[in-house]
Amino acid sequence: MTIIFYDLCGKDGKRFSPFGWRTRMALAHKGLEHHVELVKFTEKAKLEFSGQKLVPVLKDDYTVVSDSFAIAEYLEDTYPDRPSLFGSIEGRGMAKAINNFVDMTIQIHMANLIVADVLEHVDPSCVDYFVSSREARFGKKLADVQVGREERVETLRKSMEPIRRIIAEQSFIGGERPTYADFTLFGTLQWARCTSTFAILDPNDPIRHWFERLLEDYDGVGKSELAAA
Amino acid sequence: MTIIFYDLCGKDGKRFSPFGWRTRMALAHKGLEHHVELVKFTEKAKLEFSGQKLVPVLKDDYTVVSDSFAIAEYLEDTYPDRPSLFGSIEGRGMAKAINNFVDMTIQIHMANLIVADVLEHVDPSCVDYFVSSREARFGKKLADVQVGREERVETLRKSMEPIRRIIAEQSFIGGERPTYADFTLFGTLQWARCTSTFAILDPNDPIRHWFERLLEDYDGVGKSELAAA
Repeated sequence: MTIIFYDLCGKDGKRFSPFGWRTRMALAHKGLEHHVELVKFTEKAKLEFSGQKLVPVLKDDYTVVSDSFAIAEYLEDTYPDRPSLFGSIEGRGMAKAINNFVDMTIQIHMANLIVADVLEHVDPSCVDYFVSSREARFGKKLADVQVGREERVETLRKSMEPIRRIIAEQSFIGGERPTYADFTLFGTLQWARCTSTFAILDPNDPIRHWFERLLEDYDGVGKSELAAA
Repeated sequence: MTIIFYDLCGKDGKRFSPFGWRTRMALAHKGLEHHVELVKFTEKAKLEFSGQKLVPVLKDDYTVVSDSFAIAEYLEDTYPDRPSLFGSIEGRGMAKAINNFVDMTIQIHMANLIVADVLEHVDPSCVDYFVSSREARFGKKLADVQVGREERVETLRKSMEPIRRIIAEQSFIGGERPTYADFTLFGTLQWARCTSTFAILDPNDPIRHWFERLLEDYDGVGKSELAAA
């Protein structure tokens, strides 16, 4: 078996994609060796074989899977002897609901706080693409998206409350071990850690401690990517 | 074993508590015979033995459990030979995250749309209590809470999107069988069904079809409570 993981990269090969991090943690959780193929924002032609333009993409011998959740499901089905990402078939659906919740709330709030910071970590060859695509998405100048974030960060923090209440009581969302449910929010926070110095979490936030534990897990794969400075 | 389930009741014994319905569905899922003790809003003295004032409360021989999620955990641990509510230990934590998400978003949006309708189903002896406690909670006259709901219902519908995306693809949140994750949102929708004729869901909403399936499940326990007319 040869797994190739196509992940987004920015300046100097920095890997900060929140969705890429979900896959990276899933591969680490399963303990699966793989080759990484870095893809810049303007190198989407590299993904043409997958029939779509978004990272992450996984190629496992002759199988091609895109979309981070579909990749997690593929890994769970194909490598059932490795540690489970979902715990059970019931957990798979529940993890997807949590995945959707993170995508539709936390990830969107976060983007509104840090997207101009992300620009600093984009490869110089992709800056024009990044600015024009993001300004089209947000409907305003990139620098304006972050205006007032010191006040708006409370909305982001509050949106994490359904997960915070779990983490305050137990080590991970699914209990004593991480599962894919953790990797969804982890991806969003890792995206912020790698690209922005803005204070996302209160120092006493249980989510901060949970995130720091996850950064150390799996031989510190999360920590291996440098924080923005 | 003798299980006594203390559930809220309104006028003519109508049981509409969203949290009570979570427990009622959990008991049905486990197939556990039980005796129901009805508790009106002003009969909280009946719950004194539980050390707190909120339904649902479960008394199983000498064990007393309050809080709907804690009751579900108790039932799962105590009756492991019955159908599982969570599928796995991982699913238990994930279901709790979904439970928290429903409580903090969907349940709150719903209350803001139907609380004055609920009043119509409150026992006459409890009307004063209900009005004063809810007006204190919402900080306005009960009738004013629902003003503009025809527009605000879109916020509620949108808040269900993380679950809708699952339900559009598979029968229940956890796959082919209901789990406790389903009962969290079910409770909120059943509360609305029993107390309000306001159109909560678009007729084509996948959540509507999922809800109607759940109403029929477990020998139609959901349907056994009449809809508001």
